[in-house]
Amino acid sequence: MTSDLPVLLAGVTMLSALHMGFQARRVGWSRMKHKIMPPTVTGPPEFERTFRAHQNSVEFYSIFLAVLWISGIFCNEVLAALGGIIYIVGREMYFTGYIRESKRRLPGFFFMLSVLLFLIVMATIGIIQSFLDKYLNIRLF
Amino acid sequence: MTSDLPVLLAGVTMLSALHMGFQARRVGWSRMKHKIMPPTVTGPPEFERTFRAHQNSVEFYSIFLAVLWISGIFCNEVLAALGGIIYIVGREMYFTGYIRESKRRLPGFFFMLSVLLFLIVMATIGIIQSFLDKYLNIRLF
Amino acid sequence: MTSDLPVLLAGVTMLSALHMGFQARRVGWSRMKHKIMPPTVTGPPEFERTFRAHQNSVEFYSIFLAVLWISGIFCNEVLAALGGIIYIVGREMYFTGYIRESKRRLPGFFFMLSVLLFLIVMATIGIIQSFLDKYLNIRLF
Repeated sequence: MTSDLPVLLAGVTMLSALHMGFQARRVGWSRMKHKIMPPTVTGPPEFERTFRAHQNSVEFYSIFLAVLWISGIFCNEVLAALGGIIYIVGREMYFTGYIRESKRRLPGFFFMLSVLLFLIVMATIGIIQSFLDKYLNIRLF
Repeated sequence: MTSDLPVLLAGVTMLSALHMGFQARRVGWSRMKHKIMPPTVTGPPEFERTFRAHQNSVEFYSIFLAVLWISGIFCNEVLAALGGIIYIVGREMYFTGYIRESKRRLPGFFFMLSVLLFLIVMATIGIIQSFLDKYLNIRLF
Repeated sequence: MTSDLPVLLAGVTMLSALHMGFQARRVGWSRMKHKIMPPTVTGPPEFERTFRAHQNSVEFYSIFLAVLWISGIFCNEVLAALGGIIYIVGREMYFTGYIRESKRRLPGFFFMLSVLLFLIVMATIGIIQSFLDKYLNIRLF
């Protein structure tokens, strides 16, 4: 019954959701370490970097999920899922780098951005192909 | 035509979207009450708690939607939709508690977290089952 | 194979994702212009308005995507996709208005809100119809 569902995309989505939860948890740990009680969001540089690292993840998370599922469903599920896993690795590099030093967020950031661009290209190809097929009856592949 | 669509998940999603909009509205009301004009996000403690309560909802919203839909589609739609409604109740408890006093956000928070963990377990079971069925031809249930 | 997928919704989603990325980019440009290095999020009014404009987009993005897809799948894909494109235009009006002056964010904001309400009405009609059909075997249309 469920055998034709995009289970790889669902699996990568769950991994990414758990990773988002883990990042939120690390902001909480940083709050405890530096004794910064909510709703305060300012404090020592290390706390502010941790807080902003998480915020950046939040800002990109919906974009990531949208691009992951569209590239996976309209183009290629296995490639999209692999891209998704690599994106999560880049997100972790970004987060741990950012906590140590502001400029150490950059390698992970550009790494993620490359993966995101790759998924965007896949999604765009898939959408164009699907649009031509559905509305103009043209089959490219 | 639409009779096999996950309408319960869609319904709970719409309720949660309206609840998110209502929280944003309450931040706006708190702005008016305390005369804090955008783009300022600091001010009296009550305003800052309201602002942060909403931000926390935003931080968790994509995670919630992902887990809701995956648990509902890969495991059980009725249970997932019920979990979703209970999560929204917990979110409301969190929000109204947080506005009054920082530590009163905690009961609602742990309540939500329990529901989220329940949905994550459902989603994980559903994904494992679906993966075994699709790629290894093993049917657990 | 992919010819029955909601390609218009996917296309509008990709446009909105690129627009979100463009807004994040403009926050980065504003950082450079005003020499405000992460994790700092305060500074000259123009930077703070740009930062908050982007944050508001993030706060609404998941709501927008949920409402777009549910109205498109449960009610009418073409209308929902058109609404989605108009919403992105309103989001751009909001962003560029907000950067210039706080109160100039309002025309774009109310414009977006109208489109969102229209999509919410579509989604609600679609869900009620689908629920009656699936669970009570009542066909309204």
